[in-house]
Amino acid sequence: MLQKRIRDYGITIGTQRVGPLNKITDVEGVTVGHSTIHEGNVHTGVTAILPHQGNLFQEKVMGATYVINGFGKTVGTVQIDELGTIETPILLTNTLNIGTCSEAIIEWTLAENPDIGKTLGTVNPVVGECNDYVLNDIRSIAVTKAHAYEAMNHTSKDFEEGANGAGTGMKCFGLKGGIGSSSRIIDFNYGRYTFGVLVLSNFGMLPEFRLNGESKGKDIQLKLKDVQQEPDRGSIMVIVATDLPVTERQLNRIIKRTSVGISRTGSFLGNGSGDIVIGFSTANKIMHQKPNKLPSIQAIHEDDIDKAFLAVADATEEAILNSMVTAQTTVGRGGHKLYSLSEFLS
Amino acid sequence: MLQKRIRDYGITIGTQRVGPLNKITDVEGVTVGHSTIHEGNVHTGVTAILPHQGNLFQEKVMGATYVINGFGKTVGTVQIDELGTIETPILLTNTLNIGTCSEAIIEWTLAENPDIGKTLGTVNPVVGECNDYVLNDIRSIAVTKAHAYEAMNHTSKDFEEGANGAGTGMKCFGLKGGIGSSSRIIDFNYGRYTFGVLVLSNFGMLPEFRLNGESKGKDIQLKLKDVQQEPDRGSIMVIVATDLPVTERQLNRIIKRTSVGISRTGSFLGNGSGDIVIGFSTANKIMHQKPNKLPSIQAIHEDDIDKAFLAVADATEEAILNSMVTAQTTVGRGGHKLYSLSEFLS
Amino acid sequence: MLQKRIRDYGITIGTQRVGPLNKITDVEGVTVGHSTIHEGNVHTGVTAILPHQGNLFQEKVMGATYVINGFGKTVGTVQIDELGTIETPILLTNTLNIGTCSEAIIEWTLAENPDIGKTLGTVNPVVGECNDYVLNDIRSIAVTKAHAYEAMNHTSKDFEEGANGAGTGMKCFGLKGGIGSSSRIIDFNYGRYTFGVLVLSNFGMLPEFRLNGESKGKDIQLKLKDVQQEPDRGSIMVIVATDLPVTERQLNRIIKRTSVGISRTGSFLGNGSGDIVIGFSTANKIMHQKPNKLPSIQAIHEDDIDKAFLAVADATEEAILNSMVTAQTTVGRGGHKLYSLSEFLS
Amino acid sequence: MLQKRIRDYGITIGTQRVGPLNKITDVEGVTVGHSTIHEGNVHTGVTAILPHQGNLFQEKVMGATYVINGFGKTVGTVQIDELGTIETPILLTNTLNIGTCSEAIIEWTLAENPDIGKTLGTVNPVVGECNDYVLNDIRSIAVTKAHAYEAMNHTSKDFEEGANGAGTGMKCFGLKGGIGSSSRIIDFNYGRYTFGVLVLSNFGMLPEFRLNGESKGKDIQLKLKDVQQEPDRGSIMVIVATDLPVTERQLNRIIKRTSVGISRTGSFLGNGSGDIVIGFSTANKIMHQKPNKLPSIQAIHEDDIDKAFLAVADATEEAILNSMVTAQTTVGRGGHKLYSLSEFLS
Repeated sequence: MLQKRIRDYGITIGTQRVGPLNKITDVEGVTVGHSTIHEGNVHTGVTAILPHQGNLFQEKVMGATYVINGFGKTVGTVQIDELGTIETPILLTNTLNIGTCSEAIIEWTLAENPDIGKTLGTVNPVVGECNDYVLNDIRSIAVTKAHAYEAMNHTSKDFEEGANGAGTGMKCFGLKGGIGSSSRIIDFNYGRYTFGVLVLSNFGMLPEFRLNGESKGKDIQLKLKDVQQEPDRGSIMVIVATDLPVTERQLNRIIKRTSVGISRTGSFLGNGSGDIVIGFSTANKIMHQKPNKLPSIQAIHEDDIDKAFLAVADATEEAILNSMVTAQTTVGRGGHKLYSLSEFLS
Repeated sequence: MLQKRIRDYGITIGTQRVGPLNKITDVEGVTVGHSTIHEGNVHTGVTAILPHQGNLFQEKVMGATYVINGFGKTVGTVQIDELGTIETPILLTNTLNIGTCSEAIIEWTLAENPDIGKTLGTVNPVVGECNDYVLNDIRSIAVTKAHAYEAMNHTSKDFEEGANGAGTGMKCFGLKGGIGSSSRIIDFNYGRYTFGVLVLSNFGMLPEFRLNGESKGKDIQLKLKDVQQEPDRGSIMVIVATDLPVTERQLNRIIKRTSVGISRTGSFLGNGSGDIVIGFSTANKIMHQKPNKLPSIQAIHEDDIDKAFLAVADATEEAILNSMVTAQTTVGRGGHKLYSLSEFLS
Repeated sequence: MLQKRIRDYGITIGTQRVGPLNKITDVEGVTVGHSTIHEGNVHTGVTAILPHQGNLFQEKVMGATYVINGFGKTVGTVQIDELGTIETPILLTNTLNIGTCSEAIIEWTLAENPDIGKTLGTVNPVVGECNDYVLNDIRSIAVTKAHAYEAMNHTSKDFEEGANGAGTGMKCFGLKGGIGSSSRIIDFNYGRYTFGVLVLSNFGMLPEFRLNGESKGKDIQLKLKDVQQEPDRGSIMVIVATDLPVTERQLNRIIKRTSVGISRTGSFLGNGSGDIVIGFSTANKIMHQKPNKLPSIQAIHEDDIDKAFLAVADATEEAILNSMVTAQTTVGRGGHKLYSLSEFLS
Repeated sequence: MLQKRIRDYGITIGTQRVGPLNKITDVEGVTVGHSTIHEGNVHTGVTAILPHQGNLFQEKVMGATYVINGFGKTVGTVQIDELGTIETPILLTNTLNIGTCSEAIIEWTLAENPDIGKTLGTVNPVVGECNDYVLNDIRSIAVTKAHAYEAMNHTSKDFEEGANGAGTGMKCFGLKGGIGSSSRIIDFNYGRYTFGVLVLSNFGMLPEFRLNGESKGKDIQLKLKDVQQEPDRGSIMVIVATDLPVTERQLNRIIKRTSVGISRTGSFLGNGSGDIVIGFSTANKIMHQKPNKLPSIQAIHEDDIDKAFLAVADATEEAILNSMVTAQTTVGRGGHKLYSLSEFLS
């Protein structure tokens, strides 16, 4: 794992501390895995996020979703919004493979829980997507359940960013996009907590791009003047993890601040960009089986929430930059080439 | 099509007129098809609703969703809510087959539109579901893409209700549920319009059941006292079709009144019942390709909307009753038997 | 308090137990007060609900709102939805007096909290309304801050229903409406909890009216055939109180089931009827001042929520019936006369 | 009107053209008026926005709201969201005067419409607010109906920005805030349309402040190191006007992009900042009285919406900067002093 990240270029977003890996996996229990496909014109994949390492269906995490721009096909939001829980791995993939990945999560969860469909009700798979059609022959619908299993079954604390897994074929601000991540540590007198963000970046037009506030896209575009810019049919998926104790309402408020981080990179949340956020807190697990007594949860006082807002805004901005700077220049479907942001930084 | 329906028992819901078939297909252009599976412990299927007979992706219908109770896995709502359009067939199936049916819609739509994934963006499949685990071995995930294709490729104006297609294994108020439909005609000085409702009924506890206001469930339960009542892990999917010219906001208000029809049958919208509504209007088609001029749409004045509210409330109530009375007594997985409401009417 | 209520006519809604008063005030700490105005063509008033008897601003209750039909002018919902708290009395009044009542709550709260506007931020008044123009000269905007103060300062556990306070001029199903209330007791192995509902009923057309499921409105209309029916420009405000420990998400789900109770009385949630619900739980108070440690709250497991759903549905239905049966026949503005439901029951 | 605005300092936001006044009043028919109060420790006021110059109640404009952060007391959103219309002037004022301003709008509208409350239903006042307690003795509740009338009755195309009307006592990024405005012109092959934005700025912490992307707040803070920074209990109200033909759904999507403009100025949408947006389009008027025929409206194709998104993002950013740069250094309640941004620009 020797990818050069945005901090390695001397660029620091915000003033809060970052975790040991500066990735979503700094949140205790969270792991990430990839399955990457390069076959002919197919350049795509799957990325899996596991909220914890136990039985997710039996021991759910508190979940929330926020739709910044709903031009997207994310699966699973209706039940998360109603019940406030996530009970499966979260998969990210290309737009036309949401069905396959939903199937894979269902079968994976059934294998682990022999009573689902008998006495335990059913399961709500969570799948996010972006459209990687520029580099990937998305019509081939190349992701199989085996790829999804590979991603779910081989997760770890450390993981590669950039053009890996679901990020393989993505494009961001006219450059190469993909998977990026960052984390923040916040302290209260009652404890230390971590926020982690993982993005699948596939949005934005090059001239809009801002690097830590500075307008940078137009300069890069001048250097790429021979490269035809495709219209934006992008999207961004943002996954927010934390161990901060909150209610679902608070979690929803917190993940909404991802839009600040996205806006800071230059996006105006364009029509074609389906920008969808899924968040979870591991602090208060929700047991599938009703316990014998009245459950208690902990939840911060609202006056303490600003640190969480800022953590999510900053980590989202940095995760996007990490996704771009770690994604190497890639040639894909029909010879389309997307340059890495790293080629324009020094 | 000689199924005996609730009106054949002398029961009339409301005072508005019904259409020629008294089904969702009374709305011009709408067709419905089933694929039904009975194999060992598998008793399930797929039902397809086509909003019109042209190219749905190129010529979208105005769409809206309303989540009464989001304990469900419906696919496609995020984009419908954002863009106000439906661009594929709507499939209904069992809970664990939403992935397969999403895939089938994607492939079906790609086959019809060779430019999707190249120049035309991607496609948003719409799949609703209920949990038929009482009669169906849902863990077998028995629905294949071929079943979904069969439903989509063999639709017609007239169609069977009850234990067919997605309704094959469903249970409603402790009795046999399934597919049911009804329609209403409303007149204004500027034209005549049709509302059609199709339900996949799989909700409710027997003691709650009300037949046109009258408490009927407790009487039936006395007659079934040897039959053990399972807990409610049901749901209802409601599809509303109309040719009334409306905006998305108005369509959303209108389909919300399905909850009135559901409440009238005795449901209190229980926790386990994922009650989700998808509606569309064929009046104002939305072209995928931008036209050269500013589009116009027609939309009723709000003072005319009450007729539509009442049409949807009444047609939903009648569709639920039709689903129950047309569904014959069925023995399913492990010998579980669900009785038809028709056995208790005369 | 010798008003004859719906149970005194032998009509029982549902099977759950009711509290000692069968009113919203069965929830510990809740009190209700009225200010009633009859002056010439003015027949209107104010009703105040106090969630508890301490300093509401310093010790907030968890709150939620649900908009069944937003054709209404309720004040305060934006902040309740965002922060999940109610920090003032709730006032109900006629539509054109929401401004006056907002002012009164602000001044009342400022008087009790000398640091508001200096170091404590501001205050979010909560005011609901219905349009009593049939019996009341609403254009006179007759409610003053003094009336609002009278209602807030003279609350008690027992209170009159019917044509009192905000209910003075209201109309329901073409008959006299007003204030009504009911309660339910639910038991779990970890404790006993109470739900209380108070309605301000002002909705519905007479022919739709159902009494415990039975269509009753058409019969009554025959007896009133000389009475001209006004069009429905009504509304219903529903206040739900409980001491059940829940999160804001759960509270929101619970108060949504008021729509079931409203639907059962015959309403189809007509366009002109602004149907708005405000709920609170006194179980987990939220302190204005941040405590020194991480707060804990208790919240039921979702599998226990159905009893709460049913309690709210049943208590809402009964509260509406109580509002109608306790409201005496009233002659108002310009000689308009509304009959009491009690005249048609025996 | 010789206020020096942000463009006068050589700072240009975005690349779209601005209208003749570069204010919200560039949208045909829109006018703005102020009532400003300076009396002892009272420094506050009212600002009125009239969507057009006809009878607003009889000829409503299409309206939408978007709650970025609902820690605010805005009045009127429930009905705008349900019916998609605005039927009164929009007033902005301080937080504790929302009641008074609601009353004033109601009375103003009743005076113009003698049938309201008799045959025409009631009226939905729209009032936004921010908390100006730093400079204003907000507890005095100093705004009267006369002030509101003054603002509504003296509107014009040109108007002052900065510390006027509702902006009199506001604070933004630790400096003086207030009223600011900007506009954008967008062209399609079927016509030219205008977007106008007006903000009441009262949010943000000084260190966060960014001027056209550049971090500027920390520098200014160094120069103000003797000035104690108050905690942020701010807010921003954003009013968006346009003559672009859209549906309510589209209008809602468009006004959501105000959050991009706010984020660009450095805000992370902090907990205490109630950020609320109200938008209207004058393109398709909605008549209170139902016409005899089916109404038609025009609405852009979704592929044309990006220009509107960008217009709103850019105009919001510029309006905030205008509010700050035009607001002169002000000394208020108890000698609190807020500096003008203009003192730090050259």
